[in-house]
Amino acid sequence: MKKILLLGAGRSATVLIQYLLSNAQSQGWQVSIGDVSVDHLGPFLQEFPQTRAFPFNVQDEAQRGAEIGAADVVISMLPALFHPLVAETCLALGKHLVTASYVPPQIKAMHEEAQAKGLTFLMECGLDPGIDHLSAMRIIHQIQAAGGSITSFKSFTGGLMAPESDNNPWHYKFTWNPRNVVLAGQSTAKYIENGAYKYIPYPQLFRRTQTFLVEGYGSFDGYANRDSLSYREPYGLQHIPTMLRGTLRRPGYCQAWQVLVQLGLTDDSYTLEDSARMTYRQLVESCLPEADQETSLRERIASYVGLAPDAEELRLVEWTGLFDEAPIGIEHATPAQALEKLLVEKWKLSPGDKDMIVMLHQFEYELNGQRRKLTSSLVVLGDDEVHTAMAKTVGLPVGIAVKLLLQGKLQTKGVVVPLQADLYNPILDELEQYGVRFQEQE
Amino acid sequence: MKKILLLGAGRSATVLIQYLLSNAQSQGWQVSIGDVSVDHLGPFLQEFPQTRAFPFNVQDEAQRGAEIGAADVVISMLPALFHPLVAETCLALGKHLVTASYVPPQIKAMHEEAQAKGLTFLMECGLDPGIDHLSAMRIIHQIQAAGGSITSFKSFTGGLMAPESDNNPWHYKFTWNPRNVVLAGQSTAKYIENGAYKYIPYPQLFRRTQTFLVEGYGSFDGYANRDSLSYREPYGLQHIPTMLRGTLRRPGYCQAWQVLVQLGLTDDSYTLEDSARMTYRQLVESCLPEADQETSLRERIASYVGLAPDAEELRLVEWTGLFDEAPIGIEHATPAQALEKLLVEKWKLSPGDKDMIVMLHQFEYELNGQRRKLTSSLVVLGDDEVHTAMAKTVGLPVGIAVKLLLQGKLQTKGVVVPLQADLYNPILDELEQYGVRFQEQE
Repeated sequence: MKKILLLGAGRSATVLIQYLLSNAQSQGWQVSIGDVSVDHLGPFLQEFPQTRAFPFNVQDEAQRGAEIGAADVVISMLPALFHPLVAETCLALGKHLVTASYVPPQIKAMHEEAQAKGLTFLMECGLDPGIDHLSAMRIIHQIQAAGGSITSFKSFTGGLMAPESDNNPWHYKFTWNPRNVVLAGQSTAKYIENGAYKYIPYPQLFRRTQTFLVEGYGSFDGYANRDSLSYREPYGLQHIPTMLRGTLRRPGYCQAWQVLVQLGLTDDSYTLEDSARMTYRQLVESCLPEADQETSLRERIASYVGLAPDAEELRLVEWTGLFDEAPIGIEHATPAQALEKLLVEKWKLSPGDKDMIVMLHQFEYELNGQRRKLTSSLVVLGDDEVHTAMAKTVGLPVGIAVKLLLQGKLQTKGVVVPLQADLYNPILDELEQYGVRFQEQE
Repeated sequence: MKKILLLGAGRSATVLIQYLLSNAQSQGWQVSIGDVSVDHLGPFLQEFPQTRAFPFNVQDEAQRGAEIGAADVVISMLPALFHPLVAETCLALGKHLVTASYVPPQIKAMHEEAQAKGLTFLMECGLDPGIDHLSAMRIIHQIQAAGGSITSFKSFTGGLMAPESDNNPWHYKFTWNPRNVVLAGQSTAKYIENGAYKYIPYPQLFRRTQTFLVEGYGSFDGYANRDSLSYREPYGLQHIPTMLRGTLRRPGYCQAWQVLVQLGLTDDSYTLEDSARMTYRQLVESCLPEADQETSLRERIASYVGLAPDAEELRLVEWTGLFDEAPIGIEHATPAQALEKLLVEKWKLSPGDKDMIVMLHQFEYELNGQRRKLTSSLVVLGDDEVHTAMAKTVGLPVGIAVKLLLQGKLQTKGVVVPLQADLYNPILDELEQYGVRFQEQE
């Protein structure tokens, strides 16, 4: 009997929990699930006698040690800031660890000790990071094995809404941490294009989009995501002339978000005076120069950001409720926190809502003196507002990786990012059984 | 014999040193001057036998203790980051301290202990902060003493070039820390206007200027400076409907600087790849989207920032050398560091150059049911590139304050900012002897 400890049972863990439980009997797993609250799991877990759910406080050193000590492998789906703490305990107690989050510096520093102890700390094994690595590396290795030389790699991912649930003018609802969505892009985006380094400061990011068509699903806008340059080395593409990673939104979103950025409404660096009583309309006014009050708020914003007063962007901004005289109602709020509060209500999933994950890789390469293009795309739809496409694509790679690890099929030790064939082949193959299947087009 | 220790003998201390030395005999002062290098003071000091200049390393605890221990009052004109260290030693050894810099939190925390020990730590006693406090508080107290109620206070200061030395298209040269000029405004500006809070994010700051006319000296553009709200309480203007502090530049500067901001060239948050070999032209290209290379760089910038290709702003940008194929030549440079290097050459004072300080206070107040306006303005010209207006206006208030302190005329203990009559009256009065004289206009 192998013991799996899953820490974190939030909305991105729903499909992972299903996967673990449905494999538990055939694989001989005993699954323990800990989170701040696990009440929501109660009814569901009754059918699975080998499974235990319990209230878990990651900051409680004694409980953390006891639970991790009793496990064979630990999965952390907790907020990313807790991963170093979990990893530290895994290292001390000699336990494997799997997460869907980026490798933080503290965990990177554990590589040699984990390796020496024969432990695997598999990180970045969810969707993005995760499926992006797996699917890109399979293609990169295929092209390189055939003797091809990759000259351009652009990769974009978005967590969006399925067409049937896409019923607001932003074409967006939250299926991921709202705070991260509001703050997205605030560090300068870096990439390389035709051999030239490119840097996009935040105030320009949402106006520098490119449009992609995905057959059967229409158009998407992509904006550049953080540091694409740092992927060149791990991907084995040190000398690639063009490399860009980004995020997808439906057309209209980036253009309207740019208005919020220009006004300063995504700023998280200072707190507003008297924010509890300030209204959203006053917040918007506080971003604008003093002006003739006979001109409408919408007209003044339009003039400030260089749009026509009847611009679609302003319809989207107004739809959020930012022009309403409703109080923000949070003490010492930053503009970003005030905006997040509004959007959490407006961009909430409704019962039955289906979300949609879209991932798109575009390769250009030279093979036998010929220039070729290859596009690989993935569309995954959610079942409902609980079993989301986000929860599938984040949770299933984690679950499959844990299975490989417990079956002894993953031999790499230390801090590992899933770039290698013994991970991408079995994980991508099994994902296809769950409808997570890439379409390739030359 | 009173012993004065001056730490820091850089270019903003030239006039202060003159002031201390010319008062030394009549006041019975012995002046010691320490800095990393004091070679430049040698010839000049020979005439003053009561004066000593010596190499000083503020980080050397033994030397710091010995020199401060031997003084009656310490003046720190070192870079502001060293002030807490100097203040700590002054506190331990029971010495008064005078600086021209903002009160940092570490020194603010020393208030009660300094007070208990009967010490005066007089901070913010230079130009801005310094003369701005002194001159504003004298007027505020005058209006209030007459029964007036202040409804609006706007205050702007600029360190610029005298008309006869104003010979580059930016109408600007460095008379102050270049790095601070390049990074100016990066925190959100906050003020209040007609009772409404206003916030200006950095990307909008340099386009939201207002123009002022100073008789005999032409027009100036003012942009908002940091947190004007925080001055309401110390100035006794808690309920003022309009309060704004800002910085002055000559027309043209802010508009062209806004282009640099939009491109991201003032960004200090990341380092450029291969910056030593990257040319300035490549740096500018790295800020722009990939485009048809047959269009000129200037045309592409114009289109990107929404200007005409022949716009004056672009002439100023090109004048800096940013379009040249000269290598940046600094390893791991941020864009701001690269830009600073270029500007330090271009905006250097030439022999004989005269700088100019402009300060402008605009008050609106109600007195006996009438609405009134009062403008108070100051223009100070430099003598040459060493005895600058900047060095006069930063150094003289410090020198006069030290004299008051040693004469026992400044009785306030603890951490003090010069907002009170026993400081502003004697300092402003003596400043007039040096040509630092405000002109008032109702």
